[in-house]
Amino acid sequence: MERLPDWWGALSTAQLVIEIVATLAFALSGLVEAARKRLDVVGVCVVAGLTAFGGGTLRDVLLDRRPFFWVQHAGWVWALLALALGAMLFMRARHLQPTERAMLWPDALGLGLFAASGTQIALQAQMPALIAVVMGVMTATFGGVLRDVVCNQIPSAFSDHRPYAVLAFTGGWVVVGVQALGGGDELALAAAALVVFGLRLLALQLDWRVPAWRFEDDPTS
Amino acid sequence: MERLPDWWGALSTAQLVIEIVATLAFALSGLVEAARKRLDVVGVCVVAGLTAFGGGTLRDVLLDRRPFFWVQHAGWVWALLALALGAMLFMRARHLQPTERAMLWPDALGLGLFAASGTQIALQAQMPALIAVVMGVMTATFGGVLRDVVCNQIPSAFSDHRPYAVLAFTGGWVVVGVQALGGGDELALAAAALVVFGLRLLALQLDWRVPAWRFEDDPTS
Amino acid sequence: MERLPDWWGALSTAQLVIEIVATLAFALSGLVEAARKRLDVVGVCVVAGLTAFGGGTLRDVLLDRRPFFWVQHAGWVWALLALALGAMLFMRARHLQPTERAMLWPDALGLGLFAASGTQIALQAQMPALIAVVMGVMTATFGGVLRDVVCNQIPSAFSDHRPYAVLAFTGGWVVVGVQALGGGDELALAAAALVVFGLRLLALQLDWRVPAWRFEDDPTS
Repeated sequence: MERLPDWWGALSTAQLVIEIVATLAFALSGLVEAARKRLDVVGVCVVAGLTAFGGGTLRDVLLDRRPFFWVQHAGWVWALLALALGAMLFMRARHLQPTERAMLWPDALGLGLFAASGTQIALQAQMPALIAVVMGVMTATFGGVLRDVVCNQIPSAFSDHRPYAVLAFTGGWVVVGVQALGGGDELALAAAALVVFGLRLLALQLDWRVPAWRFEDDPTS
Repeated sequence: MERLPDWWGALSTAQLVIEIVATLAFALSGLVEAARKRLDVVGVCVVAGLTAFGGGTLRDVLLDRRPFFWVQHAGWVWALLALALGAMLFMRARHLQPTERAMLWPDALGLGLFAASGTQIALQAQMPALIAVVMGVMTATFGGVLRDVVCNQIPSAFSDHRPYAVLAFTGGWVVVGVQALGGGDELALAAAALVVFGLRLLALQLDWRVPAWRFEDDPTS
Repeated sequence: MERLPDWWGALSTAQLVIEIVATLAFALSGLVEAARKRLDVVGVCVVAGLTAFGGGTLRDVLLDRRPFFWVQHAGWVWALLALALGAMLFMRARHLQPTERAMLWPDALGLGLFAASGTQIALQAQMPALIAVVMGVMTATFGGVLRDVVCNQIPSAFSDHRPYAVLAFTGGWVVVGVQALGGGDELALAAAALVVFGLRLLALQLDWRVPAWRFEDDPTS
């Protein structure tokens, strides 16, 4: 574990804060989805954990970057377990039911934050711009993909015809652009996360659609 | 492959034996599930292999630990292929049908052994206790999760409302506890594996349930 | 990224060409499947990318081999995006519909090429013969497995009862055999890829079947 590459030290406070907020946001979204699928307590914790840590872990495996965020900051695994159990008890006590809408806000936040920080971390690992952006997209979407695969449905990121991964892609290029223009790391992170978060909410509000493969004889298109 | 870290040499004979028995136990459980899903011969071999080696391989990728068990001991891949083909021929000859019950015993054994050895190997890799336990849970459950994902169903570990991952979690803490109390490695392994195996059989026998997310208006809860 | 192992330099021009052709062939097969599932543009690009790069990336993660093909040759990610978008526009303009048959040829080509090159790369990484062959099978099939898992169906490689993974397995042994007999790397690659490609087309043409687990009382077998 001692052979940390040089660029590891560059993980700034801003990146750390973002990693934490995004992780909690995604954990919440995984929690809601697992509850909607009627998983048991263990399933809820696992799906929340997969959604929260899946994207960042995939990015780190691909970048050969160790230790993982959740290994280095083991406290956050406790936080996640507490969050999952607390949310279950809270919602049962209040007779609240998890709805699909309740998932959208934390999910949009996690999307923006992870796309921004994933791209930046990959850039610091000397990846070419496009690869860094793709890594950002993976960081932002893979947790949700894992959540959907485990819950046995086609990942909504690829099939619900609403802008999601494409916004993470946009956000990645915002990071690349701001840094190319000489903007600082924090500015790049903030700008990208805000753009993605804003566009996602706008897209949901205005019902934007990603074009699908259209068929002549297809009544559904 | 020569750059084995120091803690690798610490893989004791007990750990090796356990890895082998657990691998065969899980292979058998994968085999039965694949047969029940009517996969072809290739599918049966692959699903048996995924179930058997998936958890340990994930643990090793996360710990950045090489070579993998199945790479270093390639003979076990042959053993697995022989087991899968042999079991198919044997069951066809005897007109035996794979049942869900037939899967439970080897599965419970693999669960206990992998949870124990996974936790211990992660502890030897200097992981914090909680992370080591989580790694043990992954080692023990990920093979089954892969099996279920490939067979296109929600992983039973998260959805069947019976204690499974939570027992692996318990077993991991038994390893941590015994070692903290000064017990030797073999004792920790044996105690944890036995606790998990016993509790699992007891849970199935007594029909213990993991609490689910309950809804007010839900007739099924 | 500078610590390339010795055997990396051995990636010959023939291997590079094969990696590219196989990647494009699999991208095309992922594209057709994603279109048949009515995924949106993003889903089509992602599934094409997973199918194309998934197998090689898994092989490289397991071999601890960096940089990945698609990281080192980032241009091919652009090529893939262009291919996916171009194919969508082209097929819409021509009123072509993606059929299952259209997927079979590029898929057979990718299968042969990836099985051959995956085995050879693993052999160069000092893997034992069986492990190298298994790595070749993974390289050749994992992309398609990812494609099917994301599209929420049992991987056709394990369930359609047609020879697929078993042909990749055969091809891997052709590589091992030709090299053991003193044949050059290029010869081994070409022979194995041709054998797999040819057998796959033959198998589809002649409707060869992989035996399944047969049940006495099963009307479908």
